[in-house]
Amino acid sequence: MRDLSKDNRFLSINTATVREQGTLAQIIDGIARAGIPGISPWRDQLQACGVAEGARLIRAHGLSVTGYCRGGWFTSGGAAGLAAALDDNRRAVDEAAAIGAPCLVMVVGGLASQSRDLPGARSLVRDGLAALLPHARAAGVTLAIEPLHPMYAADRACVNTLSQANDLCDALGAGVGIALDVYHTWWDPDLERQIARAGKDRIVAFHICDWLATTRDLLADRGMMGDGVIDLPRIRAAVEGAGYDGFCEVEILSKLDWWRRPLAEVLETCVARYRTVC
Amino acid sequence: MRDLSKDNRFLSINTATVREQGTLAQIIDGIARAGIPGISPWRDQLQACGVAEGARLIRAHGLSVTGYCRGGWFTSGGAAGLAAALDDNRRAVDEAAAIGAPCLVMVVGGLASQSRDLPGARSLVRDGLAALLPHARAAGVTLAIEPLHPMYAADRACVNTLSQANDLCDALGAGVGIALDVYHTWWDPDLERQIARAGKDRIVAFHICDWLATTRDLLADRGMMGDGVIDLPRIRAAVEGAGYDGFCEVEILSKLDWWRRPLAEVLETCVARYRTVC
Repeated sequence: MRDLSKDNRFLSINTATVREQGTLAQIIDGIARAGIPGISPWRDQLQACGVAEGARLIRAHGLSVTGYCRGGWFTSGGAAGLAAALDDNRRAVDEAAAIGAPCLVMVVGGLASQSRDLPGARSLVRDGLAALLPHARAAGVTLAIEPLHPMYAADRACVNTLSQANDLCDALGAGVGIALDVYHTWWDPDLERQIARAGKDRIVAFHICDWLATTRDLLADRGMMGDGVIDLPRIRAAVEGAGYDGFCEVEILSKLDWWRRPLAEVLETCVARYRTVC
Repeated sequence: MRDLSKDNRFLSINTATVREQGTLAQIIDGIARAGIPGISPWRDQLQACGVAEGARLIRAHGLSVTGYCRGGWFTSGGAAGLAAALDDNRRAVDEAAAIGAPCLVMVVGGLASQSRDLPGARSLVRDGLAALLPHARAAGVTLAIEPLHPMYAADRACVNTLSQANDLCDALGAGVGIALDVYHTWWDPDLERQIARAGKDRIVAFHICDWLATTRDLLADRGMMGDGVIDLPRIRAAVEGAGYDGFCEVEILSKLDWWRRPLAEVLETCVARYRTVC
């Protein structure tokens, strides 16, 4: 298991963590000033900046892009809406390639409006990923399936376990991988077995934050590493035991706490916690 | 699959559904007036009424008891607190027997305070169930393990999938069963397979409500059947396909909606939805 305490070399910041504190340009500058080498931009933030300008700023600050968030949402319009979803996803793949992101994180979508057909949604996701895959392969961007916590099965993602993501990787072959986020998966009694099953080749992103024992909001009350109940070293040991040697990407959606603090304070805290509790 | 549309014969009300609307005596009276044959009392409500008086009222109104909620909480005090938790659970078993409940629903407990040891908590739960089992067997009360939604893994129950509950039943043998609640399990891609695995002997309670597409509170924003996204007939078909022929027990914790409505209105709505959408 790697020793993270000495430097920041494997630390990346997902820009959602500080989305309320500034523009992407300001966030890039803050990350570089904090001595953090990695960044994973969200799509709305990059688009607001302009893709070419965002790519230029990231390069100019010497940052490594660890992912691009996010594609997916295959199910929102039901089967009839898949073509439009695919068009949008192809643009997301192109944007990921433009900023040098190794992967596009896929939040696959939940149930279509008025639908209760969860197996149907899951089938549509598989079809959508398969249809997107040739474009992603050609662009050299891995489609990183992110299993989301089961509490998002209705409204965000019907892929809710690492087992499901592994099954999709089995079915789809080269060009797909997995974004493993401790927030979504920490509870899973099958987690360590499925991490081993995924292995080095499939795990293309590792997202960290914490689960607060008292969670007040389903979407945006994630905790800073160390403030919650996730045994981060145990999960990281499993991930690294499977061969993962990439970045630890901090992604904290926190409208009640961290989004209200100054950019520099949040980033400094990420560094300190990364070095001491992860 | 049974036809529920003609009468209420398999309908039961979990008293948490109307916990804000009256005493247990008033709830018992309301359930009987609504022509509902089953009841599943919560422990705090029964204790406030008095166990003997509650038992007498339930009998006097001709209601069938479909469960008693709830035992468990083995982990709150860590390993050192297990003996006290067991004492309390033995009293809960005795209360269940006193009201003629076939099962005690087990909300097994989450992480102990300041703990991040989820595997340890799960191990403690297994030990607690095993230690409680002789008393439960002697009382003729089945310990109904209730897998809770993964969003409660930290603070309520570290048994979060039907697969885990089945594994515990495999390990513990006669006297344990499963309380299957659609709210906690609807998202599970392995649900139908695990229902078949559980089978008629293990499924001793079937709880219904709905998952609201926009859920505003982690604990108490459950929906009335038909108002959410759960495919209730699909799950009931699987449960009955496995041989289950018992009650459908309505358990809705809803501080934002149903707890604010009159008792009779809630019960009438339960009847109407039970007959039309379940």
